[in-house]
Amino acid sequence: MSEPIAFINEEFVPAHEAKIPILEPTFTKSDVVYDTISSTDNLIFRLDDHLDRFENSCDSMQINPPYNRKEIATIIATCADKTGYEDTCITIMGTRGPYKDITSRDPRTCQNGLIAVAMPYYYVIPKEKAQKGVNLSIVDNKRVPSESVDARIKNFNWMDLTRGLLEAYDKGGDSAILCTPDGKVSEGPGFNIWLAKDGHLKTPKGNLLEGITRKTIFELASEIGLNATETEVYPEELREADEAFTSTTAGAIAAVVEIDGKPLGNGAPGLLTGRLNDLYWNKRKDGWHGTPVKSLLT
Amino acid sequence: MSEPIAFINEEFVPAHEAKIPILEPTFTKSDVVYDTISSTDNLIFRLDDHLDRFENSCDSMQINPPYNRKEIATIIATCADKTGYEDTCITIMGTRGPYKDITSRDPRTCQNGLIAVAMPYYYVIPKEKAQKGVNLSIVDNKRVPSESVDARIKNFNWMDLTRGLLEAYDKGGDSAILCTPDGKVSEGPGFNIWLAKDGHLKTPKGNLLEGITRKTIFELASEIGLNATETEVYPEELREADEAFTSTTAGAIAAVVEIDGKPLGNGAPGLLTGRLNDLYWNKRKDGWHGTPVKSLLT
Repeated sequence: MSEPIAFINEEFVPAHEAKIPILEPTFTKSDVVYDTISSTDNLIFRLDDHLDRFENSCDSMQINPPYNRKEIATIIATCADKTGYEDTCITIMGTRGPYKDITSRDPRTCQNGLIAVAMPYYYVIPKEKAQKGVNLSIVDNKRVPSESVDARIKNFNWMDLTRGLLEAYDKGGDSAILCTPDGKVSEGPGFNIWLAKDGHLKTPKGNLLEGITRKTIFELASEIGLNATETEVYPEELREADEAFTSTTAGAIAAVVEIDGKPLGNGAPGLLTGRLNDLYWNKRKDGWHGTPVKSLLT
Repeated sequence: MSEPIAFINEEFVPAHEAKIPILEPTFTKSDVVYDTISSTDNLIFRLDDHLDRFENSCDSMQINPPYNRKEIATIIATCADKTGYEDTCITIMGTRGPYKDITSRDPRTCQNGLIAVAMPYYYVIPKEKAQKGVNLSIVDNKRVPSESVDARIKNFNWMDLTRGLLEAYDKGGDSAILCTPDGKVSEGPGFNIWLAKDGHLKTPKGNLLEGITRKTIFELASEIGLNATETEVYPEELREADEAFTSTTAGAIAAVVEIDGKPLGNGAPGLLTGRLNDLYWNKRKDGWHGTPVKSLLT
């Protein structure tokens, strides 16, 4: 039987049994960083890139999980392996942990921890929608600016993104695109955004999570001779693009066919988008950037 | 024996047993609103004000806890009563709850919940420090602006505040004051800030939690004939104030005696600050705005 598996308190347990105390600032201050990694055909994609980012997130918040990089890789692989699924999403979390005593509010006194959980591979934008192409709303709610919370530190402080998502749903969108307070396109709840115009790819720069799939798309674009740049992007450019797509670990590439309910380009999933998506999945199937789960087990 | 008590999954349990699943967006998206209420001498302070604010927080995030106002009041009182403490802080949380299935990311499918927890009355700024007077650092990390997350919705998205706190500690401060990206004083991690200059009180307006203790101070100031206004406040005004103090449910009023390590006013806890603090506690002792815990039990 296959089932989601978590690693918590030094044990591997069915994920639904994994719980954290409501008094920990991990929860009450959302004082936790994370990363989400995927495996397909029992190959973990770009493990080192994810571990680099996770370590950077931990360092930026002065969180020191009690395992080294090699041990964390083994925990990730063991979670994935124990699920019984060949295709998984694995989330690792560096937690602030419990305060020294119940009335303390000093994060420096906390015992930092590590939690991991592996589940069947899932899609931030549901697969059926991603295949037909999605309608994204450019919402009024703004993305938190980097000077408040650096989005490169992958974290659970999602209230701006959740508010954006609820606003998008209210407007009939499948998901949201948030802009920074100064009006530049940032990202959506769980994905980066790309546009294609006259055969060139563009993705926003700054004030966003620097996605591993985003990084991958630069490599894929280069491979097929497409020009791709990270730069400031304004909502109008997105509305006037020939194509647009989202990129994320959980779901890879999804074509955008409408912005704010208005057709984008010719209103069908873009040809470049499709080409990049096929290339992405074909290369993964061939083992590109893949680390076998089995090779990491102890 | 006295011990912290939580209400979770329709049961009252010792607080250390209360846990939430790591897969709930309540945790993974910090998709939860809350309020913290205090009781002293078994009298709950300004219960209706806290319930009003909590209801507003829930509404703003489209979270509908499965209890009505009267039932929530009873849950709060029952938690406080069961602890055995006469002086408590009680936190209520409106939770997004679990997704409909493990791979869904749609918050609209979640079953919203309510958690409450009562613990001994505590001090956001430790009592010993509050009595001597605290050194606050005006930190570089900015407060999240209202257009991203409305701070009036009391929430656990504390990463900006935690980053500010860690930065303050690094600079030798006891706690932090954060400014908005446009440079105005906002609030600290868990408290509002006030200054006194030439006998007038000022507190920042906008982009901050509208504290119940902050509201109370307006009433106390009026009672003793002090002029008190909410208005834009800039860091320089705070540095040049005669007195400053923090206000919060968990700890009430704490005198600020240094800003960025430099003495404020005459470097001792201010006289107006002390007068307001004494008045606050004397009036609470007299039952002002107090609802007996016992009156709410069923």
